[in-house]
Amino acid sequence: MTRRPLLVRTYAELNAASADLLRTAAAAHHAGHASLGLVPTMGALHRGHAALVRAAQEANDVVVVSIFVNPLQFGEAADLQRYPRNLEADLELLAECGADIAFAPSVDEVYPGGEPMVRISSGTLGAKFEGASRPGHFDGALTVVAKLLHYGLPPVPADYRAYFGQKDAQQLALVKRMAADLDFPVEIVGVPTVRDEDGLALSSRNRFLDADQRAAALVLYRSLSYLQQQANRHEPLDIKGALAMIASVPQVDLDYLEVVDPDSLEPLAFNCQDTPFTGEALALIAARVGDVRLIDNARLG
Amino acid sequence: MTRRPLLVRTYAELNAASADLLRTAAAAHHAGHASLGLVPTMGALHRGHAALVRAAQEANDVVVVSIFVNPLQFGEAADLQRYPRNLEADLELLAECGADIAFAPSVDEVYPGGEPMVRISSGTLGAKFEGASRPGHFDGALTVVAKLLHYGLPPVPADYRAYFGQKDAQQLALVKRMAADLDFPVEIVGVPTVRDEDGLALSSRNRFLDADQRAAALVLYRSLSYLQQQANRHEPLDIKGALAMIASVPQVDLDYLEVVDPDSLEPLAFNCQDTPFTGEALALIAARVGDVRLIDNARLG
Repeated sequence: MTRRPLLVRTYAELNAASADLLRTAAAAHHAGHASLGLVPTMGALHRGHAALVRAAQEANDVVVVSIFVNPLQFGEAADLQRYPRNLEADLELLAECGADIAFAPSVDEVYPGGEPMVRISSGTLGAKFEGASRPGHFDGALTVVAKLLHYGLPPVPADYRAYFGQKDAQQLALVKRMAADLDFPVEIVGVPTVRDEDGLALSSRNRFLDADQRAAALVLYRSLSYLQQQANRHEPLDIKGALAMIASVPQVDLDYLEVVDPDSLEPLAFNCQDTPFTGEALALIAARVGDVRLIDNARLG
Repeated sequence: MTRRPLLVRTYAELNAASADLLRTAAAAHHAGHASLGLVPTMGALHRGHAALVRAAQEANDVVVVSIFVNPLQFGEAADLQRYPRNLEADLELLAECGADIAFAPSVDEVYPGGEPMVRISSGTLGAKFEGASRPGHFDGALTVVAKLLHYGLPPVPADYRAYFGQKDAQQLALVKRMAADLDFPVEIVGVPTVRDEDGLALSSRNRFLDADQRAAALVLYRSLSYLQQQANRHEPLDIKGALAMIASVPQVDLDYLEVVDPDSLEPLAFNCQDTPFTGEALALIAARVGDVRLIDNARLG
């Protein structure tokens, strides 16, 4: 499948295009009920995004991919400036994985009145981990996700799903929580992290790593895998050992390594370093390699 | 029209009922496009609410009135406790003004996971005036309005409007701002304040005033009318005179009297006490009479 998605720039165009495609899909169904999958992205698409689009494509009649670099979630202007943008390459990738509509609005289309006054507040769940090092980041991210979820609402009766990567575990937890707490009429679907063959989680930031840094960064995945093996064998988790692995790589400056509840991201109720591991948890890790901040995580149990 | 509205208690029941009524309405239209009007209330309905429901009824095929005393927007538990509740009387009033569905969910239906983590933040617009004396009030109010706007979304294609009283001017400005900033697919409609014959704005709190207090409270309306007359004649506004009127009534303890932009509620760009009045503005007033806090406002221009 290499047909290019339809590129639309405004909310009105998106609405008209998705209504058309959903009506065609509904007519082709016996039951008459179509479905729409929304994949919000900031562009600079890689195979991680392709997995999101393919997941959406397998479960839905119509797939909309939004491409919007949201100024609200960048703390520093320099960070926003250097965020990679390449719409042409993004459309090529979307053609390969079966997106129907690419929605690439301007900043003025999304924020016609300038910065929004009324916003989403991510609460204590948004203040820790990535939120601690990027104050306001998740409030800004959830605010644009709320807008995009409204933009994407099927204009004719249809099931509605939105896809987010498990790579950004805290963002996924927050988007699920927002949809539940504010009753957005959408199912939030998390899609497993895509990794390079050596295990490095795909990220648009990996391009900023040189070869040595890239090799050093692999310790993130190694330490997560180490904990995952213990969890699979229902052993206590050797968190000290995992920390020592990371400390042995001087280029890697650890920010946090935490084992938490997968929904609330709260510390686990039991001491997983002394107690055989049971149940479900998430191991979260963040580190700087050079001036590149990397995050990764692994599901335990 | 004295048919009682259909009483529903859950989101699923509301959805099924409004889908049914909208389909019937759409079938009766030549163009096939129906409309739904939502009137969010906290019950204790009076003629002010009846005006909201009538406005919704005149413009829409299906009218849903929600009745829910939202714990999130009460600062003190005592305030929440003493808030009047009388579902039976509310349903009688709704029968008279043509509501189709009364949606009266339990606290557990609206907040199944307890207090929400992710909320709406009302920003600086929610921090002043009523927000200054009730910290967190508007964040809580907007959070439940966001949920109700999602609950009320027409399950089949239909125009969607929601109705709020101009009496709560700051709430109306904030709901309009939220709908615009977060792209809720709904038109927010403000409905003029209903007054008793002597001018007192209807409020569920008026029942707590004794006869003397009620007579004293009329100075709020008198001072607003005084400013309105000057605005209509394009004269400078005699705000000092209005303040003196209020100060002459000892039972009335003024909190604020401000003339502001009707959308942003920011102070006006020109000095309306020295310059002939042109354009549009809103005069906001809040005062305590005994232990009852009253608010009122008037459109100028």
